[in-house]
Amino acid sequence: MQFSVKIDIILLDSSLELVPKEIVNHPSVVKNAMKRGKRPEQTILDISLHYSAMKNLPNFRKRGRPDILHQTLLLILEEKIMDEIYIHTIDSKIIRVDPSMRPPKNYDRFIGLMEKLLIEGRVPKENNPLMEILNVKLEDIVKGKNPILLSEDGKRTSPEALCKDNNLIGIGAFQSGDFSSEVKSYFYERYSISSRVLEAQQVVCRLLSGCNYLLGWP
Amino acid sequence: MQFSVKIDIILLDSSLELVPKEIVNHPSVVKNAMKRGKRPEQTILDISLHYSAMKNLPNFRKRGRPDILHQTLLLILEEKIMDEIYIHTIDSKIIRVDPSMRPPKNYDRFIGLMEKLLIEGRVPKENNPLMEILNVKLEDIVKGKNPILLSEDGKRTSPEALCKDNNLIGIGAFQSGDFSSEVKSYFYERYSISSRVLEAQQVVCRLLSGCNYLLGWP
Repeated sequence: MQFSVKIDIILLDSSLELVPKEIVNHPSVVKNAMKRGKRPEQTILDISLHYSAMKNLPNFRKRGRPDILHQTLLLILEEKIMDEIYIHTIDSKIIRVDPSMRPPKNYDRFIGLMEKLLIEGRVPKENNPLMEILNVKLEDIVKGKNPILLSEDGKRTSPEALCKDNNLIGIGAFQSGDFSSEVKSYFYERYSISSRVLEAQQVVCRLLSGCNYLLGWP
Repeated sequence: MQFSVKIDIILLDSSLELVPKEIVNHPSVVKNAMKRGKRPEQTILDISLHYSAMKNLPNFRKRGRPDILHQTLLLILEEKIMDEIYIHTIDSKIIRVDPSMRPPKNYDRFIGLMEKLLIEGRVPKENNPLMEILNVKLEDIVKGKNPILLSEDGKRTSPEALCKDNNLIGIGAFQSGDFSSEVKSYFYERYSISSRVLEAQQVVCRLLSGCNYLLGWP
């Protein structure tokens, strides 16, 4: 009998949002939107473009890093061991990602796609969406699953030990700071897979490799 | 006694080059360079921007994918198991990368940095460079090492079996096509770590995880 495994992954507090109202008129935001032929409120917050505008936003060090999502999705969506994939955003949206989706490799194209998703609610707009914003909350996603948070203060374990059907593995997709209270209230089982602080893409890489190791590196 | 390991990685035939002479006057190349306030010959070839200009270049499907390098370097340079890191480019340049380097996470900033490197030969220009183009050939790099090519037609093995001191692991950093004859003439030991064709970042992820597994996931 062949060993097989499918896991669910949810990227948590993901640093993905449209430019918030407070700063839509800031010169750096307007200038960058105009360059791309867009209105400021149609563009995604990105600290590498909007640093000066963002400095006074609450919680700004946790925001404006859509590159983290890009990097992690590029790894996740090339593997065949995914059952369900979700993105939970910093403002509590839940996005369902179809495991057959292949995100644009080019960062600017990825940003364009995510802008479309945040504005229209789904991409592509017609037929079966590859990504869509669900009308649910984090609470609804964890129901009936075994939610596990990967966190530096968790109990030390190995990635391969986490690779089990019905595990919903939560991985932070933000730069710095703590998980939100919403995340903490539904993910109380915490594990750590390293003796040091890892970046999101390293966490994803280790987890996927843990599964692939169990499967004999398919 | 603690088990320890350091490996050398070389990214091979990496899809990184400045816009070649044949297409510096193509409208799409000029337009994209102008947008960034640069001369066309100072910009990096990128298929997501220059597709229409590139179509008639020889070997064009293997070129213009600096995002592959970005993605793999972001994974490699967060790990502590690297001894030497090299980038061998599609036009046979050899770039030494300091393991303490942290590449810009933002793609456009990464491109700006690589443009500087290709034009000036090193970054930063003063003091100890974090990346520099060496005046050597691939032949010189493999000397005294055990060069191993990761290739889909290689002998099947596991990533952890490859993680040995003195192994120089060669990984293709291009989209499609075969390794160059230069690469094939110095890397004749070939291994495969999957039953299917992997993307460069997946190969890197598996290899690093193989080492991290041996080390008890540090």
